[in-house]
Amino acid sequence: MIIKLKKGATNDQVSHIVEVFESLGMEIKDISGKEYGVLGIVGDTSKLSIRDMEALEGVEKVTRIQEPFKKANRKMQEECTIIDVNGIKIGRGNFTIMSGPCSVESRDQILEVARSVKASGAQILRGGAYKPRTSPYAFQGMELEGLELLKEAKKETGMPIVTEIMSVDLVEKFAEEVDIIQVGARNMQNFDLLKALGKIDKPILLKRGLSATIEEWLMSAEYIMAGGNDKVILCERGIRTYEKYTRNTLDLSAVLAVKKLSHLPVIVDPSHATGKRWMVKKLAMAAAAVGADGLMIEVHNDPENALCDGAQSLRPEQFEDLVIDVKKILEVVGKKM
Amino acid sequence: MIIKLKKGATNDQVSHIVEVFESLGMEIKDISGKEYGVLGIVGDTSKLSIRDMEALEGVEKVTRIQEPFKKANRKMQEECTIIDVNGIKIGRGNFTIMSGPCSVESRDQILEVARSVKASGAQILRGGAYKPRTSPYAFQGMELEGLELLKEAKKETGMPIVTEIMSVDLVEKFAEEVDIIQVGARNMQNFDLLKALGKIDKPILLKRGLSATIEEWLMSAEYIMAGGNDKVILCERGIRTYEKYTRNTLDLSAVLAVKKLSHLPVIVDPSHATGKRWMVKKLAMAAAAVGADGLMIEVHNDPENALCDGAQSLRPEQFEDLVIDVKKILEVVGKKM
Amino acid sequence: MIIKLKKGATNDQVSHIVEVFESLGMEIKDISGKEYGVLGIVGDTSKLSIRDMEALEGVEKVTRIQEPFKKANRKMQEECTIIDVNGIKIGRGNFTIMSGPCSVESRDQILEVARSVKASGAQILRGGAYKPRTSPYAFQGMELEGLELLKEAKKETGMPIVTEIMSVDLVEKFAEEVDIIQVGARNMQNFDLLKALGKIDKPILLKRGLSATIEEWLMSAEYIMAGGNDKVILCERGIRTYEKYTRNTLDLSAVLAVKKLSHLPVIVDPSHATGKRWMVKKLAMAAAAVGADGLMIEVHNDPENALCDGAQSLRPEQFEDLVIDVKKILEVVGKKM
Amino acid sequence: MIIKLKKGATNDQVSHIVEVFESLGMEIKDISGKEYGVLGIVGDTSKLSIRDMEALEGVEKVTRIQEPFKKANRKMQEECTIIDVNGIKIGRGNFTIMSGPCSVESRDQILEVARSVKASGAQILRGGAYKPRTSPYAFQGMELEGLELLKEAKKETGMPIVTEIMSVDLVEKFAEEVDIIQVGARNMQNFDLLKALGKIDKPILLKRGLSATIEEWLMSAEYIMAGGNDKVILCERGIRTYEKYTRNTLDLSAVLAVKKLSHLPVIVDPSHATGKRWMVKKLAMAAAAVGADGLMIEVHNDPENALCDGAQSLRPEQFEDLVIDVKKILEVVGKKM
Repeated sequence: MIIKLKKGATNDQVSHIVEVFESLGMEIKDISGKEYGVLGIVGDTSKLSIRDMEALEGVEKVTRIQEPFKKANRKMQEECTIIDVNGIKIGRGNFTIMSGPCSVESRDQILEVARSVKASGAQILRGGAYKPRTSPYAFQGMELEGLELLKEAKKETGMPIVTEIMSVDLVEKFAEEVDIIQVGARNMQNFDLLKALGKIDKPILLKRGLSATIEEWLMSAEYIMAGGNDKVILCERGIRTYEKYTRNTLDLSAVLAVKKLSHLPVIVDPSHATGKRWMVKKLAMAAAAVGADGLMIEVHNDPENALCDGAQSLRPEQFEDLVIDVKKILEVVGKKM
Repeated sequence: MIIKLKKGATNDQVSHIVEVFESLGMEIKDISGKEYGVLGIVGDTSKLSIRDMEALEGVEKVTRIQEPFKKANRKMQEECTIIDVNGIKIGRGNFTIMSGPCSVESRDQILEVARSVKASGAQILRGGAYKPRTSPYAFQGMELEGLELLKEAKKETGMPIVTEIMSVDLVEKFAEEVDIIQVGARNMQNFDLLKALGKIDKPILLKRGLSATIEEWLMSAEYIMAGGNDKVILCERGIRTYEKYTRNTLDLSAVLAVKKLSHLPVIVDPSHATGKRWMVKKLAMAAAAVGADGLMIEVHNDPENALCDGAQSLRPEQFEDLVIDVKKILEVVGKKM
Repeated sequence: MIIKLKKGATNDQVSHIVEVFESLGMEIKDISGKEYGVLGIVGDTSKLSIRDMEALEGVEKVTRIQEPFKKANRKMQEECTIIDVNGIKIGRGNFTIMSGPCSVESRDQILEVARSVKASGAQILRGGAYKPRTSPYAFQGMELEGLELLKEAKKETGMPIVTEIMSVDLVEKFAEEVDIIQVGARNMQNFDLLKALGKIDKPILLKRGLSATIEEWLMSAEYIMAGGNDKVILCERGIRTYEKYTRNTLDLSAVLAVKKLSHLPVIVDPSHATGKRWMVKKLAMAAAAVGADGLMIEVHNDPENALCDGAQSLRPEQFEDLVIDVKKILEVVGKKM
Repeated sequence: MIIKLKKGATNDQVSHIVEVFESLGMEIKDISGKEYGVLGIVGDTSKLSIRDMEALEGVEKVTRIQEPFKKANRKMQEECTIIDVNGIKIGRGNFTIMSGPCSVESRDQILEVARSVKASGAQILRGGAYKPRTSPYAFQGMELEGLELLKEAKKETGMPIVTEIMSVDLVEKFAEEVDIIQVGARNMQNFDLLKALGKIDKPILLKRGLSATIEEWLMSAEYIMAGGNDKVILCERGIRTYEKYTRNTLDLSAVLAVKKLSHLPVIVDPSHATGKRWMVKKLAMAAAAVGADGLMIEVHNDPENALCDGAQSLRPEQFEDLVIDVKKILEVVGKKM
């Protein structure tokens, strides 16, 4: 941690700053230049908050050198994490496709889509039972009924299921009935929920928040891991920028950044990132090329009549085509699916 | 709602689109030009999702004309809403200052700060009992104990209290013991929480999300109001942009936008917006000048030793100075405090 | 163009609005609903400015339906444009790699790099003679001397050269001596420069501005084309967002958007987008997978001692490795290089 | 400057890094912790580029502590700069309003507006002769004829004139005929233009770029000052963010930041920031409250028929009203106008 002092910082202020850090067990090294007073703080500063340290009299700016995440940090584990979901391996050379409709809408719909995506090569079935919708007047999901239908689809096809949780109340139920529990972008910093998920033994798919930095995203993973659950799968789904042609801006460099900073697997969701069906396949191929560990792809048997996000859902035959082309990319990058 | 058709849209596709909208009770007007087919959709489209409509074959782009919020809409209520908190009026010509520490840290601290901010002119006491922290290793608030201390401070000073809720489980308790329930920026789209808050009869302070559009923010207010609770106070607290000199970028034009679009009161939090103590007073004055209905200001008796956000907390004497200068601005703009 | 009227717009105001548009040769269709007055404007509105129309009394908001660019528009030319640079074809199924150092620094440096990138498969040599630097105290390029060295490297290797122009004064010289003239991100809306480049007959490489929308970018291409020069190659090089781990955020969905909206070729520059050498190859592969028409890659024989942007420059052997892997992706997507 | 080393950096790499900095005349202090190697570099690092230093083998990340601007830095001059424009003082306790139409459109228009804004209290006349327009098909300004009309308006009213320059070719002419030369947001990093303006002795109004950081903005001021012209007035005019309700997001905290970092005067342009006439007055008051040194306000005698940006131009009577209310705020903050 680097402390830049204010120009007119008094000796008393500096002594006090030094005392504070020493009392926290840190070592202080003076690296001041002609124009600026600068202190280098040596020690485990991961638990210190930059803003708290900036409150000290005489401090102008505090810069963190050490990453604030520990368990999620690649430095703690050189090797990539593998997460096993009912025998399907995610991460470390494996490529996993999760696919299904945005929302579960009916028994026929989810069964038909499940069979179809399985036939095309998807390994895990996604489907929303509880839906976060911007409008209170929009369809909010089939809720428990939707969850039952997902379980039925799992039973029939053998595919593990991933679905979004929105409430702490449901953690126990989801822990029993769902194979991967998804935390949506809007809940990435719902810390109560993250803490509750840290206490169970179930893989968590953690979507990047709408405007989360990579560090904040990894800190949310850290929340789950700090509780004892280290089965976290990250999912890049586009970030909010000034550009409005696409719903969000897919940040594929984040995949590389996460892989450098962390040992956790990271998959890509091009459907939510763009909101445009015709962009999904090409960006899925790009995600595979850049080194993602998998994809989450929305597929609907009848996107026109979808109750949610039809514009970004592929038809089954489009998904089949996507898998074929993604596999060709996987051959180039040496991943197996 | 305006439907721009794809260049090669077939007659069948267009007929189908027309059918869909007619079945939803809409009237369709053809406003196509030479180069583009365009349909104008007349009727109550507020419940339709743009993305769902973009899923229809032959549709290139859907543009909403009508705002999707109803109860929060100025069009539903010309007059500004007043919210009464134990006799203190918020909105419609009143100016209200909520002040106190970021976190409740001890009995002495909260009582001392409460007395001090009251003496300086604050009407409502803020203080965090449950704290959303980016790091799982950071101080998470005194929780229930903090709430008890806030109640004690209320008892002694007579000031109503506002504090942040992070969990649906606590809605009932907060509804009984807190005067204004705060929803933090990170939970602005925690829809489960919003729904629960819609069912109680207690003022809600709804902070703008880190990267929420004004429309999304009003839609979150709509969630609460749709449930039956129309006592929503909005709070602008800075948005995330590329500029990193300040913690966030305070968007004072949002105050004007909200006042045009909605009848709800809107206050400004310059402490969280900037993260810098020395910016707070001037931006508080600017917020008063632009027409905000109040302020939320962090004050700490000992910011150096604050357990959270000391860098942005004013000392009591700085807060007193702020109130004096803000009052001068209020005279200019004709607001009473 | 859609005109949303203010709630209390008077009949006189509406009549006046109608008159204005009729006088501009437009047809007006009333598509008002219960809550809003809305007018659909039919005709060629591409030359009308949204903001000017919003100045009319009684108008609340103006929405454009028709794209404002014409010559760059895919609707004007179904087929992808091919640009021929000394026999090298850019666009429509061809994949072109432009490579070389950020700056020309010495005769030895540029010749060595030129030979090396040619041997690895680059078709066009890049190198900055005039450098836009944030600091006036930083190396500003070798200028004319750098241009001479580029010409020498071209003579020796036979590779066409691309280099950045920063001043209208040099348009004539560049038109004679350079094969592709690059407009940098900071000058994307230097309209005087664009106009001057519109009057010559030489391919222009137009980088996307730091925070340019896709529409603004195409409008800058339109500036060049409106002057008579339709040889425009677009280059995505990352956009400015809140995320600071990478220098910019590479927006690969923009490649897809540009290809849909326009017939112009678009290449990708992962070096500037990320500022990180170790990210370049993977993002180059992703760019090829998504359908870009080529790449611009920085290579330096001695990145440690580069006078500019060494951190993002590949060493020759890294570039060779990149080309090998990009070619494998090109096989998958069916492009030739 | 702080150098964070890569985890596996070799001794040779570290020695080499040390050598490089020593050869640049820097002193190196080791402030490594257990997990990270970190070097503190002491000396004048303002001319070093972060990215160049990141190119060194073994370096993970470089952080700048010292600001890279010198002449614009408050540390070089404690006292606020005053710029004298024909006897009108800008900065250091003075408040200056520049007002006039977006574009000069006719003799009658500019004379009428000039008389009117002068009568209301504006001290300096603005008007665009050369206009940067996104579309090549839009009105590009009256150019030289417009400049002549501005001079006529100056002659009649005695008001100094400010107008935008877009081309290096016109620097000489503008230096003779214009009182303040404006550099628009799109040209903030047109370094050739900045260099040319550094060589003349005339006040420059430097608008903040669409997505310029405060540091980049001050670095562009530094370009002008490095050439010898230290008469730079900064102008905040809104930045590009994800929020689209307003044209840009006015960043009033930037005024405070600039005043802390630099001694240069800074004014605010709420017209361009919002693009909405009805927002201008309130934000002008807020700008005065926050401590800006002045305003730039668009006024048009007939905004409906303006050839450019009518939607954001006030009518003369609205401007008069604005000045009255801004003056009341100035009394509060103790500034004279």
